[in-house]
Amino acid sequence: MKINSEEEQKKLLMQQEITIVKRMSDIGHKIAVMSGKGGVGKSTISVNLAVAFALKNYQTGIMDVDLHGPDVPHMLGIENAILQSSPHGIIPVKARENLEVLSIEFMLPTKGAPIIWRGPKKTGAIKQFLSDVSWGNLDVLVVDNPPGTGDEPLTILQSISPLDGVVMVTTPQAVAGEDVRKCVNMVKGLNIPILGIIENMSGFTCPHCHEEINIFGKGEGKQLAEELEVPYLGSLPVETGVGENSDQGKPFILEDPDSKISKKFMKIVSKIEDKVFNGKK
Amino acid sequence: MKINSEEEQKKLLMQQEITIVKRMSDIGHKIAVMSGKGGVGKSTISVNLAVAFALKNYQTGIMDVDLHGPDVPHMLGIENAILQSSPHGIIPVKARENLEVLSIEFMLPTKGAPIIWRGPKKTGAIKQFLSDVSWGNLDVLVVDNPPGTGDEPLTILQSISPLDGVVMVTTPQAVAGEDVRKCVNMVKGLNIPILGIIENMSGFTCPHCHEEINIFGKGEGKQLAEELEVPYLGSLPVETGVGENSDQGKPFILEDPDSKISKKFMKIVSKIEDKVFNGKK
Repeated sequence: MKINSEEEQKKLLMQQEITIVKRMSDIGHKIAVMSGKGGVGKSTISVNLAVAFALKNYQTGIMDVDLHGPDVPHMLGIENAILQSSPHGIIPVKARENLEVLSIEFMLPTKGAPIIWRGPKKTGAIKQFLSDVSWGNLDVLVVDNPPGTGDEPLTILQSISPLDGVVMVTTPQAVAGEDVRKCVNMVKGLNIPILGIIENMSGFTCPHCHEEINIFGKGEGKQLAEELEVPYLGSLPVETGVGENSDQGKPFILEDPDSKISKKFMKIVSKIEDKVFNGKK
Repeated sequence: MKINSEEEQKKLLMQQEITIVKRMSDIGHKIAVMSGKGGVGKSTISVNLAVAFALKNYQTGIMDVDLHGPDVPHMLGIENAILQSSPHGIIPVKARENLEVLSIEFMLPTKGAPIIWRGPKKTGAIKQFLSDVSWGNLDVLVVDNPPGTGDEPLTILQSISPLDGVVMVTTPQAVAGEDVRKCVNMVKGLNIPILGIIENMSGFTCPHCHEEINIFGKGEGKQLAEELEVPYLGSLPVETGVGENSDQGKPFILEDPDSKISKKFMKIVSKIEDKVFNGKK
């Protein structure tokens, strides 16, 4: 379809905004996972959070809006999936019982092709995700964001209304760098609730001598939460197997449910569940 | 000054492009440090690379274009510096002998204030960095980029001409996630040389039992370089003190020049120096 005039284009954009509001109102709860800093484990936490909700029998969706680094499909072992569409919209990929996934990765013609897009195109793509995908009646949607305070997180914070809140991920080391603080301030500035801060990569136990080593520090996430007056959800240790399993499409809570990290993570999930569902599904 | 017409604005933008070309031609060599993935140590490597060049008596500049997470001033202990201007333009902050620094951090009114900018504004800010800063006659400028393949790295790759090349940073774990591969493909697609890949966070020695532990894997960076047919520059181990020193504004090559990481890093610097300066200052 050729768009003839500026006015027609405006009308189409407004229709899209209305569709987004409708689509989002069909979803029970919406949670965004963010961090000002890259490499803190946002995608790992998003994937395990979504899998945990699915295990708890919530109809769950996960949307990967890290357009430059869409790691979610790989972490769920479904990177070769192909999107289908129906008269109701794009159908997300079913990763397992109760868990549906949408990522730009599914739309790329070749693996490893970079998305060399400037901001407005990225905003457009995310809005299309929000308006064109037929999620059905989800209980909860987890949105995995790229680092920073730019186009992608801003579009998510402004377009998904109401958003139940933001799970903020940090590492002990990242606290010093101000980036996470900035991201918290952005969310607060937009009057969106922060469900809490998770301190990832917090302490490491040597697999040989079993001594505890604070490779990247420990406890700074809790201090930050107190300073910024937002809830603290808990900490997760560094574990050698997590990265490797993640690379092979195996979320740690499925692969090693009795590990220290899985047990600590499930406690965090319960806290988020209490805040979001408040006892009601 | 009020801009009256679209034509005047176009003229101003063209003047800016001309100024950028002039400013950049005054700088001997330009190197961009990039990675598709966040949290792999780009800023740590950029800072130590710039400090190493300064120690080798090159007039060195470092420009931090990670607008959402400007960590460079903090890592050099100059986060409270204030920018001055002269009739020739903005004067960068002198961090130490032979080393000048520019970062958006210096322009923020309050610490922890987020830059909630969409793409076009970010591109504008970077172009202003390139056109308005009076670097003087630098031998080399190191540009620290944010993760991804979006506005900031794209603006740097397209506006700094000629760019000597890109130093690509990865971790063993990040290789699996495709993001670094995508960034390499973007740079190759724009016909800009890749000086080489550095594998950061490669192996860890337990400080208690001295056993080697591959927390995040090892060797994947070299494999990636071979697969993508780009040079491999070397690997850097995880060391517990590096993050803490970095938080306190102390680059590891200054703080602990006899450590394993510093010795390995200086070998990488020599390789980059050979490629860029080719024996001539």
